[in-house]
Amino acid sequence: MTVEQDLTWPLRHAMRYFPDSEAVVDGDTRLTVREFGERVLRLSAGLRSLGVGPNTRVATLLANSHRYLELHYAIPGAGAIVVPLNSRLAVAEMEYILADAGVTHLVVDEAHAPFAEKLEPLVQRVVRAPDDYEALIAASEPEELPGPSSENDPVGIYYTGGTTGPAKGVVLSHRALIGESIALGLELNFNRDDRLLVVFPLFHLGAIAGIYVLVWMGSTLVFQPAVDPGEILRIIERERITATSIVPTVINALVNHPAAETTDVSSLRLVLHGAAPISATLCERAAQVFGCVLTQAYGMTEVAGAPTLLKDEQDLLDQRQSRSAGQPMVGYEIGVRRDDGSPCDVDEIGEVVLRGPSMLTEYWNKPEETARALRDGWYWSGDVGYQDEAGYLYLVDRAKDMIVTGGENVYSIEVENAIAEHPDVLEVAVFGIPDETWGERVHAIVVPHDGATPTESEIIAFCRQRIAGYKTPKSVEVRLEPLPKSGVGKTLKRDLRAPYWKGRDRFIG
Amino acid sequence: MTVEQDLTWPLRHAMRYFPDSEAVVDGDTRLTVREFGERVLRLSAGLRSLGVGPNTRVATLLANSHRYLELHYAIPGAGAIVVPLNSRLAVAEMEYILADAGVTHLVVDEAHAPFAEKLEPLVQRVVRAPDDYEALIAASEPEELPGPSSENDPVGIYYTGGTTGPAKGVVLSHRALIGESIALGLELNFNRDDRLLVVFPLFHLGAIAGIYVLVWMGSTLVFQPAVDPGEILRIIERERITATSIVPTVINALVNHPAAETTDVSSLRLVLHGAAPISATLCERAAQVFGCVLTQAYGMTEVAGAPTLLKDEQDLLDQRQSRSAGQPMVGYEIGVRRDDGSPCDVDEIGEVVLRGPSMLTEYWNKPEETARALRDGWYWSGDVGYQDEAGYLYLVDRAKDMIVTGGENVYSIEVENAIAEHPDVLEVAVFGIPDETWGERVHAIVVPHDGATPTESEIIAFCRQRIAGYKTPKSVEVRLEPLPKSGVGKTLKRDLRAPYWKGRDRFIG
Repeated sequence: MTVEQDLTWPLRHAMRYFPDSEAVVDGDTRLTVREFGERVLRLSAGLRSLGVGPNTRVATLLANSHRYLELHYAIPGAGAIVVPLNSRLAVAEMEYILADAGVTHLVVDEAHAPFAEKLEPLVQRVVRAPDDYEALIAASEPEELPGPSSENDPVGIYYTGGTTGPAKGVVLSHRALIGESIALGLELNFNRDDRLLVVFPLFHLGAIAGIYVLVWMGSTLVFQPAVDPGEILRIIERERITATSIVPTVINALVNHPAAETTDVSSLRLVLHGAAPISATLCERAAQVFGCVLTQAYGMTEVAGAPTLLKDEQDLLDQRQSRSAGQPMVGYEIGVRRDDGSPCDVDEIGEVVLRGPSMLTEYWNKPEETARALRDGWYWSGDVGYQDEAGYLYLVDRAKDMIVTGGENVYSIEVENAIAEHPDVLEVAVFGIPDETWGERVHAIVVPHDGATPTESEIIAFCRQRIAGYKTPKSVEVRLEPLPKSGVGKTLKRDLRAPYWKGRDRFIG
Repeated sequence: MTVEQDLTWPLRHAMRYFPDSEAVVDGDTRLTVREFGERVLRLSAGLRSLGVGPNTRVATLLANSHRYLELHYAIPGAGAIVVPLNSRLAVAEMEYILADAGVTHLVVDEAHAPFAEKLEPLVQRVVRAPDDYEALIAASEPEELPGPSSENDPVGIYYTGGTTGPAKGVVLSHRALIGESIALGLELNFNRDDRLLVVFPLFHLGAIAGIYVLVWMGSTLVFQPAVDPGEILRIIERERITATSIVPTVINALVNHPAAETTDVSSLRLVLHGAAPISATLCERAAQVFGCVLTQAYGMTEVAGAPTLLKDEQDLLDQRQSRSAGQPMVGYEIGVRRDDGSPCDVDEIGEVVLRGPSMLTEYWNKPEETARALRDGWYWSGDVGYQDEAGYLYLVDRAKDMIVTGGENVYSIEVENAIAEHPDVLEVAVFGIPDETWGERVHAIVVPHDGATPTESEIIAFCRQRIAGYKTPKSVEVRLEPLPKSGVGKTLKRDLRAPYWKGRDRFIG
């Protein structure tokens, strides 16, 4: 008889046993665990009074803030399902998600008010922060959270770009998110003295999944909504930040900021980064400026975050393993498989498979895609890589043909589909090329119909109307010869990409 | 779809990802994770060749050693169930356990050879360490562990003294032991740099449950079979021990040892103790000698170890909470209940109830006792206590009438039953009284039949034939007047005990 797992337990535990710890710092707002927890209880009661309950889908569209985290306890605490919206999506993409997930309630902040107006007709109810939101809290009692009926109930549906079509909703259970949280806590030794700076957007599952455990351990979360390097440095010094999770572009901005030399960052013990590779030069420089451990995380929404970590990157710079995505966390396993499903040998390239305590339950309403992704107890990631003798994982390509730019995942196929709608376009290939600021940037090669003469700026403008800005190519090259093809007629994107990545030691195309 | 939990995973993880870490130090034997793991795989295969498989019960009777730990992976790894025997039990008690659990295989070391001869007729097969044991390893291949068929399969049946009769077998699942391990790892921040000195006997569930996580994290386990203070100090210095779990009697012996002042114990970061209270004086002195954190654990076999911890005891000496058993670990909850099952108020005394990820599945073949212990999703401990406003738990008595002496639990009823068989005895009461060396010692008050004149030494000798030496009273008082009784005729043991505990601030009777 083992007790069922409920993601709201961490909060109840913290409220009972260390109510006076500082839970949240967000601008001028400072909340103890008790204050934060009571807001969650009231908010959850308030949402329930608006009809939110078991199986209701509630979308959130907010910048990072304590309210964001409150919602991510209050909604699952009501037994309901959270559907976070990436605020960088185009309205059409948000509309698709609201319809696909059957969202009935939307919580939105001031920064996203223009979206709210467009999305309002699709839902039964919009709760606007701060006004409606605070009114709901003020009008409600801090009632006990009903929580899920089983540990296998979903906490949320987290949308991720599709390889062959629109975004897919990844369903993750209470047990899965607790599994991910616990493993991170063990691996990174989070404890009550930690003060985590939250910069990475919380609508990314990896970001929110990583902070649940900190509430549990009694750590403090410091929110910083905008990515302003000078302000981040000031906060690290003022709030005695011990750990943060940021993308390499932000690391780069921090270490090159004029204030970096004079800021006291001695409280830092860990800089976690993921979503994009980091160059040896930047890693070395960051270790020097921050004087702390750098750790890379590799993962995906389907496994509730990062199943592998490359710890102490700064000590591996001259080793082969510095180019790897690390080793799995406790409780996770990684394998590499051939096309026939058999395991690859050491250093043999194949499809990366993963398993562990935090795997997706399913893709929402997509039984076929679920059956393809979950086979033999493993999640088949679509990423391509190999493992060395010590079990370090090296990624060489992404079967999903994904570009990671400024911390966001862009699926080439989606961009290609958008460009292909342009009447002048005969063929198109989209891929990532190296970029100092963004890690990778989206690049397109277009072959026009005979006689057509589309320009770079026309193609970019065309895309911008259809897909999110960060998905829109930053550069477009028009070629007149046909794209290179494989024997079966598939565009050899690897050949197109190779010249741009020559001499680079990571994610060689 | 969350992956099932299997306690052998930690070992497979360690073998794959840090095979060259030092796993075990045991006298002159030093084993890397790979060497240790391969021994486990071979041993498990060897045991399977002797008929050990799903649902087989295998008893272990060994002193602390790397072999002890190997067995506790190899047996569950074969899908079988381990039944650890407390080596201090009397032969009759061991016989009872073998029969009750239906044990077919017994593994025994040289130190326990005399027991083996007596127990051999009860089982199908005895494996003697080191000879049979090492032969089995040498003759077997390091095959993959089949493991359990489900996370709810038992790892073991752990016998614990009964309140009203013979010992009961506590059945704990793979998921439960993983739950306990993970919580301990999170709370105590165990990591790859840790080197744990294992002194506490591993046949205690709390001891073995606490070390699984260290294998997982890549820490090193240093075994020390005999409790020799001088040798323990030498090992701490030589092996750069970072953490250990010991009983207060051993802490006392260490801090008062002449070599304590000159031994380098600066590597220590944590001394964990449980099983018995520690005096403020000893705590203060230990913190000074060891220069590290002292943490107390409170728990029971039924919850797979210690659900509560009193952390940083040395900083609480002048506070009320220093007399508490601490707060629950992450994922655990504690409550105090009235006789009618309703929750007690703050500071109101009642029965301690617990729940969390590591609760017993059942008492082996005891559905009635199981139903009594597991109610409303809680484990009803039988211990009596109260909680303060901050959720610290204070124990005031044990409903099970238990004495903790030198780290062993003794149930008074069992000793009373043994003494009551003596023909001269009319009435008997057994309870614990304070003891400098043992924390508590077993004390008996005996009222003889009219005209009978039993002596202290007669009663002690009589007990020694029937129950384990540590359960036998260290002192017996013969009284001629009847024992004090409650209105319903129950002996008022609390009144008998009170004079001995006067002025003591812990576990007041």
